[in-house]
Amino acid sequence: MLQISQRGQQMPASPIRKLVPYAEQAKKKGTKVYHLNIGQPDIETPKAILDAVKNTPIKVLEYSHSAGNESYRKRLSAYYHSAGIEVSPEQIIITTGGSEAISFGFFSCFDAGDEVIIPEPFYANYTGFAVAANVVVKPVTSSIKEKFALPSIAEFEKLITPRTRAIIICNPNNPTGYLYSREEMEQLKELVIRHELFLFSDEAYREFCYEGEHFSAMNLKGAEQNVVLMDTISKRYSACGGRIGALVTRNQQVLDAVMKFAQARLSPPSFAQILGEAATYLPADYFDETKAEYLSRRNLLVEKLNRMEGVYCPTPGGAFYAIASLPIDDSDKFCQWLLESFSHQEETVMLAPATGFYQTPGLGKQEVRIAYVLNREDLSRAMDLLEIALKQYPGRTVQPK
Amino acid sequence: MLQISQRGQQMPASPIRKLVPYAEQAKKKGTKVYHLNIGQPDIETPKAILDAVKNTPIKVLEYSHSAGNESYRKRLSAYYHSAGIEVSPEQIIITTGGSEAISFGFFSCFDAGDEVIIPEPFYANYTGFAVAANVVVKPVTSSIKEKFALPSIAEFEKLITPRTRAIIICNPNNPTGYLYSREEMEQLKELVIRHELFLFSDEAYREFCYEGEHFSAMNLKGAEQNVVLMDTISKRYSACGGRIGALVTRNQQVLDAVMKFAQARLSPPSFAQILGEAATYLPADYFDETKAEYLSRRNLLVEKLNRMEGVYCPTPGGAFYAIASLPIDDSDKFCQWLLESFSHQEETVMLAPATGFYQTPGLGKQEVRIAYVLNREDLSRAMDLLEIALKQYPGRTVQPK
Repeated sequence: MLQISQRGQQMPASPIRKLVPYAEQAKKKGTKVYHLNIGQPDIETPKAILDAVKNTPIKVLEYSHSAGNESYRKRLSAYYHSAGIEVSPEQIIITTGGSEAISFGFFSCFDAGDEVIIPEPFYANYTGFAVAANVVVKPVTSSIKEKFALPSIAEFEKLITPRTRAIIICNPNNPTGYLYSREEMEQLKELVIRHELFLFSDEAYREFCYEGEHFSAMNLKGAEQNVVLMDTISKRYSACGGRIGALVTRNQQVLDAVMKFAQARLSPPSFAQILGEAATYLPADYFDETKAEYLSRRNLLVEKLNRMEGVYCPTPGGAFYAIASLPIDDSDKFCQWLLESFSHQEETVMLAPATGFYQTPGLGKQEVRIAYVLNREDLSRAMDLLEIALKQYPGRTVQPK
Repeated sequence: MLQISQRGQQMPASPIRKLVPYAEQAKKKGTKVYHLNIGQPDIETPKAILDAVKNTPIKVLEYSHSAGNESYRKRLSAYYHSAGIEVSPEQIIITTGGSEAISFGFFSCFDAGDEVIIPEPFYANYTGFAVAANVVVKPVTSSIKEKFALPSIAEFEKLITPRTRAIIICNPNNPTGYLYSREEMEQLKELVIRHELFLFSDEAYREFCYEGEHFSAMNLKGAEQNVVLMDTISKRYSACGGRIGALVTRNQQVLDAVMKFAQARLSPPSFAQILGEAATYLPADYFDETKAEYLSRRNLLVEKLNRMEGVYCPTPGGAFYAIASLPIDDSDKFCQWLLESFSHQEETVMLAPATGFYQTPGLGKQEVRIAYVLNREDLSRAMDLLEIALKQYPGRTVQPK
């Protein structure tokens, strides 16, 4: 019989996007929806970098080099230097978004049946790329009670088998906002060196750290061959639609393999490479303003959430996400109910059920992920709506006083 | 030991790009290189579609819909209608170049160990996507003596096993330029229906047909569930660097699976979607001029090649490639020699050895692929250089009179 593949069937639907039809219906009914469900910043893309695209003298929109334009890789090398990371342009391969960096990294380092360990909750799309590559994800659970700190190394070691090939982290973390400490990073280094594993580090939110400094996996001395950095300009410059990222590593074998996958797809998008290169010329204080904005939103969010009865939200150290535990029976039902059955003054709020970020069944049912990607006024209003909604929700577990 | 994956090792280097270092060295020595090795057209990208990007009012470069902008899919549906193909916007998923359409199609329809049959010589990157997906390619050989016509159905059937999942064609063909006849297409239809296989059809060069009409696999009555179209705007509008393509099918299961892979990578590039949408508004006669240009180049090329002693080039019916057999010992050696050791008046020519397009070892050693992507004057000069080079090449098999 003509049928699709097993992996096509096993491929998970996006947990962030699966509620979209309910949001569309709510909007059709005239309800305003505050979107806190997706990491799409409202911050304007810097005009200077959009202008670089507008002013390009391109006459023939040609393929670029498969590794990306050399001029851009040189500038990115300088960007990494300014971020305290020393890499040459030859150690950078430009990818179509961070997504393709993940995908190329997986194909280059893992075979079908290989295993990777990821602290959960984790960025849901890692699962998608793992299914595509027939790679098995073994989750190690981090807990909201521990503010999503790195699970103990002993917990990682329990999961290591002869098929284990890598540990994957996102730092600062999506969806928890947790910022790994230098000490935690050093523990991971010991682990990957001892067990000869790759350490894949997704640092998409590097610039958005509010408590302490970011410590890049690329700066783990002695793990130069183990570390593969997955990066993107999407969040950094509010340029999600550009689809430009990078895979960075000092491991020449990995670079050579990634380069072959890069050649097969010919080249990354040309327009967005121009945009990305222009971004490296933004003034040094560019991130200060954006970071201050996110910080003020984070403070507002965490304060409002923790004032609600039965709600707990640990203060995230970075990125622009927070996970909050709510007094509810089931976050999938609750998030759907918010769109389908709730409204207050013709407004509601869209959140992401945390279940989609945990792999272990049953976890995250009392938790939601909130992306603080709206301005303070809208964010404040959205939190007021959440508070009202929680009081009305039929599946509330702790009754309001 | 820390090592890369088997598929990372097995992944082939691009046969088109592997001679690049020799070309770079030739240029450093001051030699002008005529590039006929890669399908990068010299035709200018239409100004109107580049202007659409320049004039976009985007302030936040957001993620688009994972399937691509709805407005673009609607316009593409109209484009396909004008090309005689009836599909709804919901049957179109916008991809990052034709490359991603191939990749998503493979992941959605094939599992590790599944087999696909492809007439060789074939587009070399199919192998790359197959290696990534752990899919086995079984080549069925088409011959320059038969002008690269479709091999007999009996030859296909010899290769069919319980693991066979699809036949893959490129029409008109890269690298041969062969245009499949309606009769050949109907034979393929019978075959895929009888054996319950997918028919993947790469129609990147649809508009460039010089002998007879293009007959799309999408118009094979009764094979609606079997056919998956892989498409791209790269060659159509000389927009290779945009990285915009599409996967089109009427098979809802395939669409659902592809959509999940599309969601995992979030969205296709925004700028190039604007460009692609603008391209659907180009005047109806846009392709006439481009096609006339390619046709005149083709005629020049084929005439010049067939006038050379010991050279044979069947007249290609479409695309902008031709394969010629040359009186040489080894096309890889010859193409490298052209860059490394040959020059005439400080000029040389770069061709693609046909070996990289055959999977069967030993085939293509007397053949090269020529992309007629230079203007007539340059193309003519490049052919003169080839003629001179063939006379000087130490590995010449038929001595010139």
